[in-house]
Amino acid sequence: MHAATHRIRAAYARIAATDRPELWITLRPQADVEAEAATTDPQLPLAGRLFAVKGNIDSAGLPTTAGCPSYAYTPQQDAPVVASLKAAGALLIGTTNLDQFATGLVGTRSPYGAVRNAVDPTRISGGSSSGSAVATALGIVDFALGTDTAGSGRVPAALNGIVGLKPTYGLVPTEGVVPACASLDCVTVFARTLPEAEQALAHMTTGPATTPPPRRPGPYRIAVPATAQLGEMDKNWPEAYEAAAARLASAGAQLLPIDLTPFTEAAAMLYEGAFVAERYTAVGAFVDKDTPDLDPTVAAIINRARDIPAHRLYADQAALAALRDRALAALGDADALLLPTAPGHPTLAEVAAEPFSTNARLGRFTNSTNLFGLSAAAVPAGEVDGLPFGVMLIGPAHADERLTKIAALLTPPTRIAVVGAHLTGEPLNPQLLSLGAQFDSTTTTAPTYRLYALPTTPPKPGLVRTTPDNGATVETELWHLPPQGLGALVAALPRPMAIGAVELADGTTVPGFLCEPAALEGAEDITSYGGWRAYRKG
Amino acid sequence: MHAATHRIRAAYARIAATDRPELWITLRPQADVEAEAATTDPQLPLAGRLFAVKGNIDSAGLPTTAGCPSYAYTPQQDAPVVASLKAAGALLIGTTNLDQFATGLVGTRSPYGAVRNAVDPTRISGGSSSGSAVATALGIVDFALGTDTAGSGRVPAALNGIVGLKPTYGLVPTEGVVPACASLDCVTVFARTLPEAEQALAHMTTGPATTPPPRRPGPYRIAVPATAQLGEMDKNWPEAYEAAAARLASAGAQLLPIDLTPFTEAAAMLYEGAFVAERYTAVGAFVDKDTPDLDPTVAAIINRARDIPAHRLYADQAALAALRDRALAALGDADALLLPTAPGHPTLAEVAAEPFSTNARLGRFTNSTNLFGLSAAAVPAGEVDGLPFGVMLIGPAHADERLTKIAALLTPPTRIAVVGAHLTGEPLNPQLLSLGAQFDSTTTTAPTYRLYALPTTPPKPGLVRTTPDNGATVETELWHLPPQGLGALVAALPRPMAIGAVELADGTTVPGFLCEPAALEGAEDITSYGGWRAYRKG
Repeated sequence: MHAATHRIRAAYARIAATDRPELWITLRPQADVEAEAATTDPQLPLAGRLFAVKGNIDSAGLPTTAGCPSYAYTPQQDAPVVASLKAAGALLIGTTNLDQFATGLVGTRSPYGAVRNAVDPTRISGGSSSGSAVATALGIVDFALGTDTAGSGRVPAALNGIVGLKPTYGLVPTEGVVPACASLDCVTVFARTLPEAEQALAHMTTGPATTPPPRRPGPYRIAVPATAQLGEMDKNWPEAYEAAAARLASAGAQLLPIDLTPFTEAAAMLYEGAFVAERYTAVGAFVDKDTPDLDPTVAAIINRARDIPAHRLYADQAALAALRDRALAALGDADALLLPTAPGHPTLAEVAAEPFSTNARLGRFTNSTNLFGLSAAAVPAGEVDGLPFGVMLIGPAHADERLTKIAALLTPPTRIAVVGAHLTGEPLNPQLLSLGAQFDSTTTTAPTYRLYALPTTPPKPGLVRTTPDNGATVETELWHLPPQGLGALVAALPRPMAIGAVELADGTTVPGFLCEPAALEGAEDITSYGGWRAYRKG
Repeated sequence: MHAATHRIRAAYARIAATDRPELWITLRPQADVEAEAATTDPQLPLAGRLFAVKGNIDSAGLPTTAGCPSYAYTPQQDAPVVASLKAAGALLIGTTNLDQFATGLVGTRSPYGAVRNAVDPTRISGGSSSGSAVATALGIVDFALGTDTAGSGRVPAALNGIVGLKPTYGLVPTEGVVPACASLDCVTVFARTLPEAEQALAHMTTGPATTPPPRRPGPYRIAVPATAQLGEMDKNWPEAYEAAAARLASAGAQLLPIDLTPFTEAAAMLYEGAFVAERYTAVGAFVDKDTPDLDPTVAAIINRARDIPAHRLYADQAALAALRDRALAALGDADALLLPTAPGHPTLAEVAAEPFSTNARLGRFTNSTNLFGLSAAAVPAGEVDGLPFGVMLIGPAHADERLTKIAALLTPPTRIAVVGAHLTGEPLNPQLLSLGAQFDSTTTTAPTYRLYALPTTPPKPGLVRTTPDNGATVETELWHLPPQGLGALVAALPRPMAIGAVELADGTTVPGFLCEPAALEGAEDITSYGGWRAYRKG
């Protein structure tokens, strides 16, 4: 079977298996997508990748609803960003649900249904690009388009454990996109990994050459506000944020303090100030018709925007300009600002009970980015109590490429337990070093293992887990190495070696060298030596 | 034991084990380095990293020889680049051998001995930064400094299978470095992996903020000359180069044709033209003394430079400026030029027989970089007939950050064989997707396996290799995933699962899921179903 066909079938099987009908506004028939795949050049750069677009982005022949059935129109043409992705070989499977008119960060403000979180269906997906984020997180599509005015391309990334890139304003064309605030809107991309998001984004950007911001030579300089300045957050989220900062530091970045006040003050202006009037500019005439499928919360926001006087807008623009000067001065020569993407993760019930305040809280860290004309990358940074936790790197305009390079540093190194030929001084130790490994410590396994000398050339150890009354401890070195180093090690592993979870003396488990069962035939039990080195010497 | 102390002991044990005395001009006593480690703050960014510096770079208290004992002086102060690295916590273990006065790309032009290749001791190390490259490749140090005028920081990286970063001219201070051609010399860094090289480089660069070159939005654009234009190369090297270009294309880069002529013509000018006179400016007065420890080849080159008339330099500078204009026009809006780092890998005997022509050939691709004021990153790109093969990415000044990002794309994806819960549609398949996996094909194992249903929750398969007369084929899916995805998968692997080499129906082996021997106790043999899915259905 053609790889693209397999991918399509897996996607539709997963749509059925996950039973999340609220993700979709228009899902294309599987047969149509398969027929399109059959005529797509498999050599194209995005061939075999499936994507979805937020319901406020035009796809030829599919209704553009912006989350409001009565607003819908069916475009004849793809938005340029959709056309570019199709031209690169990507296959569109449908349009996704959103907070109506992209007004919200919750993912519940839609007559098509509240979008449930990918990991915990009792919690919100985040929005407004709710369906796109969850369809990506669930593995239905490989990437999906969102839009971001106040954080709609980042908050749902964080809440669903995926990547959301919010490129510099203007880099991705917004023609064919229903505006929320036209002077702020950016088309964004979700993917499960940074490289996948970057590859898709490369086919979304157009226009003349752009110049990245200058930087001071030396390690990456990351502005990190004091945790107290972040304000109230969900339980254990401050610690998760601090861990992300510490991770960047241990990857070599330099952390700088920053006063977050101008960012927080600007964030509050997005809905409280006069800027919300731009939403009325976009869809006010339609909202005035008061169709029954308007989301009541969204309608209230846009109705309220009708009567904001222009003189307040002038005043707010001046205030924003002053805040922006302060914010850029606070950033100084930092390469990026590290922030939690959101301060917490409400349940669907919490948002239903308090639709305005829960939403306002979600935008605390994201709202200022577009007002200040900055770029941002939202990436997963571990879990808190079984739920995804995400952080953002925010940088100047056109820092997009640099932000993803910094974000990649957030991947923690892995550890590996070594008991034989990879020990310090043993013949295969240079292989570990060549993969970027660094020595951590010497310890032993838990007392539940036996060690064999396998009848291989060169002789290799076989570590075998057994019962506590039959096992012993075995001398072990722990090494740190980057995940790609561990992956490369595993990819080159010869039979009969294997890597699996090894229990250490302290009760923790780390990946370590084991062996295939068949390798133990004719092997010598050398457990009594206490370790490979003692056996080799003795 | 302190991690830094363990690292030092491992390094000196490895120095003894590898028996490469020619690497060192001055190796510090182990006790001195251990004493220094004891007083180094372990929180510093490069704490616990060992480095070496090429013998033409000042280290306080160690003689600076430039590869010529009679030239030696003992500096009171570290070169600023060495001081920066020490301030960041790195520990210097010594100065390394080099082609005398950094004049050569072979690594044999030294009274301290010809430096043997890290992989094949009958072949050259490459030079002039020979000892630094091999000490890094052998795992003795974590990184090492070189210098690069014609390719001395890149050719030995390629020949020893490591990374060599040649930053933009001026980004790393050259004070305290014996000049080769002062207007071209760059201090470079070698490391075994890109992140390690980048982290060291971050502590070597100083000066005011710099602006990266602009770029056209879209996928990385890589200029790739026709293989025929590269000229004569070692057997199978053209194919290895083409494979590297294809790898970039499959990682999403766009390949553009380029006419290499201006690069090749400029390269030929480096030694044949008047520019070599700058080497006489640097050390001519010393060479005129005709000390007996001058390398005869190096002395011949510098002596010949004495009588080059200045009017020829004017003419050559004008010719070079014209070639540079043509080269930059040829690059156009490409982000980088991909070239083999060197055209081949001579033996020590071949260089001894033909000291000039073998050397000139080695610089065919590197010589033009500094003449044109470009930046470059030399990285491993696989092997040819068991020997390292390397390529270079060359870009405009201040493209350093971008070049390493592009170079990272050269890492090939790995494959993994999946037989159970990670199959398409099975419960753990989303884990694969979240790691960036893409479906490749469906096949079976070789007919030498048995499949068990392990008594785990949820039920997991246990694939066990057995003898051909006792085995069968098992349904298998192959997935591509990036090495960091495979590493993350392995890091999260729960007992009793393991990953090892699985033989497929076509006789190839790929990493795949196996299990610990103890897990088979009480497991049900389900081989007769032909695969996990059939068992689960049946």
